[in-house]
Amino acid sequence: MIDGGVTAASGYVANALSCGIKKPEATRLDLALIYSELPTTSAGTFTTNRVRAACVRVSESHLRRGNIRAIIANSGNANACTGAAGVAVARKECAVVAKHLGLKAAEVAVCSTGVIGLPMPMMRIEPRLPELCADLSADKGHNVASAIITSDTREKEVAVELTIKGKKVRIGSCCKGAGMISPCMATMICLICTDVAVAREDLDALVHEGVEKSFNSITIDGDMSTNDTCLVMANGAAGVSVAPGDADWEKFAAALKFVMLEQAKHIVQDGERVTKFVTVRVVGAPTHAEAKRVAEGVAKSNLVKSSWNGGDPNWGRIIHAVGYSGRRVREEKVDIDIAGLPACRGGAQTTTKSDDLRERVQAREFEILINLNMGAEEHTVYTTDLSPEYVDFNRSEYAYWNQAKQDGLTH
Amino acid sequence: MIDGGVTAASGYVANALSCGIKKPEATRLDLALIYSELPTTSAGTFTTNRVRAACVRVSESHLRRGNIRAIIANSGNANACTGAAGVAVARKECAVVAKHLGLKAAEVAVCSTGVIGLPMPMMRIEPRLPELCADLSADKGHNVASAIITSDTREKEVAVELTIKGKKVRIGSCCKGAGMISPCMATMICLICTDVAVAREDLDALVHEGVEKSFNSITIDGDMSTNDTCLVMANGAAGVSVAPGDADWEKFAAALKFVMLEQAKHIVQDGERVTKFVTVRVVGAPTHAEAKRVAEGVAKSNLVKSSWNGGDPNWGRIIHAVGYSGRRVREEKVDIDIAGLPACRGGAQTTTKSDDLRERVQAREFEILINLNMGAEEHTVYTTDLSPEYVDFNRSEYAYWNQAKQDGLTH
Repeated sequence: MIDGGVTAASGYVANALSCGIKKPEATRLDLALIYSELPTTSAGTFTTNRVRAACVRVSESHLRRGNIRAIIANSGNANACTGAAGVAVARKECAVVAKHLGLKAAEVAVCSTGVIGLPMPMMRIEPRLPELCADLSADKGHNVASAIITSDTREKEVAVELTIKGKKVRIGSCCKGAGMISPCMATMICLICTDVAVAREDLDALVHEGVEKSFNSITIDGDMSTNDTCLVMANGAAGVSVAPGDADWEKFAAALKFVMLEQAKHIVQDGERVTKFVTVRVVGAPTHAEAKRVAEGVAKSNLVKSSWNGGDPNWGRIIHAVGYSGRRVREEKVDIDIAGLPACRGGAQTTTKSDDLRERVQAREFEILINLNMGAEEHTVYTTDLSPEYVDFNRSEYAYWNQAKQDGLTH
Repeated sequence: MIDGGVTAASGYVANALSCGIKKPEATRLDLALIYSELPTTSAGTFTTNRVRAACVRVSESHLRRGNIRAIIANSGNANACTGAAGVAVARKECAVVAKHLGLKAAEVAVCSTGVIGLPMPMMRIEPRLPELCADLSADKGHNVASAIITSDTREKEVAVELTIKGKKVRIGSCCKGAGMISPCMATMICLICTDVAVAREDLDALVHEGVEKSFNSITIDGDMSTNDTCLVMANGAAGVSVAPGDADWEKFAAALKFVMLEQAKHIVQDGERVTKFVTVRVVGAPTHAEAKRVAEGVAKSNLVKSSWNGGDPNWGRIIHAVGYSGRRVREEKVDIDIAGLPACRGGAQTTTKSDDLRERVQAREFEILINLNMGAEEHTVYTTDLSPEYVDFNRSEYAYWNQAKQDGLTH
């Protein structure tokens, strides 16, 4: 791991501006651009929500037509549920950026994150696009990380350096997400750039595999976003290429997956108003699907999450969620360990002292290990507690509506 | 509707005591018994959770073997995840009650509700059983309603009187439930007694039908209990019987379903620390399953529920939950009305003033109407907001563990 973010690899430049989308006072960065100076191979995954933001539709269609070289991203408005006008705005953003950079419109992807259902304030974005495209530089990666966050409390950057065929190569990334986070999709926005050259189909397979065990294995609140996007560009600027079968392929694959998993954990650790980072590991399942169902069921249970918030090692609530989420669970076979101590064996209590269990779950991070004792499959989900403060934080988005009214975008 | 509870119909007597299961100070009623003076036909539905309380297993087996005439119920301990010892306790409760009442053990059902995973404090229950069985009377129905509640803030009783074939008959009921409430099962505990005579198979069909549109159509926190039980006894004490095809069958069926739906709504209205009662009605679905998936998805979304708590008419969050819960939803067809006002048409905002929408959702009760515009099927779910106070209320069950330690029941 090295310092640096999405422009850590060679041949990538970026810029970010404050346009007043996120806050009308225009003090926070909210519009960003990443550009690869060389052609790339690209891959991406998008939300499986049936309601898909305009930017997701446009980016997916551009990626289907070929590789991308630039990504424009904004926070404060999700451009979701904005009808045909929203798609027109997303297309226009790509077209204008492409014109300034000498690209085709389809070589630009667009990401938006923020409030759902309000029209994009294009009057705040369009006049700033020339400036955004003009002042690109390799040292502005951190500004991109700042510009894409919303309720996140900190920028999320991960970069690694490794040696491939004797050459130093890098993978850089930035990421956002803190609420509306749930598995079964490629969650949130994650942008990854590497200077290795990789064939498009190899990159694509790798990204899908990596997403499954990282962004698709986390949940904060069980709510799947309309805008989830993970985009990866590989531009070969390091002067080396990798392909499956190469001696260093596994090394590169592991590094890319490491970046994804680290970013996924960053999202969970920065969950809205959370106080715990909990690993829910289900083993001994008859199928991987059953392991996943049970792990997600426990990780999404409001009663289980509330008890973690209270530092209560409540294995009774954990097994109740195991029981309603699994299809083939047999109660009398279920073992549960909490933070390394046996709490439940064969569906009933152990002799572990409740005070000992309680002490362990006062920690900020701990693991819940559930053994169904019915097979050899397993699945791990990373999650959080549920706090009174989370609910309070999510009670109202009035401020966005009031701003949109002033902008003449709603009624 | 008439005043009265589970003993409102003729031929039913009851009793309730304070044994110190719910609170060691033994000031709250926590053990109850209902007895039919005449033979009955009986029906019931139980949780579909794969983790099933000992009392659920015993009651279901007794009901399978024949009709029941007595129900013993306690609050404070769920007798769930208590292993073979828990089943032995549930069987013993039935056997002792049966002996005192001159019944077979299989004619007694047992219900428990409370904390999961702690052994039943039989030393507190067993010595009180003779007294419980001795002092039965028809005017103690309300005490049963008090004895079965846990986090509920009030007793839940519904009784109706109607005329069947010229004779006055009654249906009485009591019910408990305020947390760990979610559809896809027969939720919580509901005990219903009628003095009509009904053939067992007709009663059974009616109960399953009624449960589907009442207790299986509510959610508070998305958490399905291990102990959900709905039991119905019909003893014919009113001197009249009904059967499908009779002129008054539909009248009786409607009355029984009314009692169930009222009790289901009582549970939602008394949800733990809730401030809103929200009806989520999905229409225009291609199948009933799709309507149900979407209605439940919206009703279970923490972000949607948090916005209701804040009085925020956030249709963007509603459609995001529609999108991830439906399988065949088409965003551009979705219409959403909030409390009677059009909020979304064709997947995008309407010209309804946001202040008008906001004013409507300040009410304690309102309806969310979602039209998928893809067919003629519909489903309605009754639900609540999610409050910071709900999370706070559910942070810890330490008190129960501490009590069980004093009783020598845990470590």
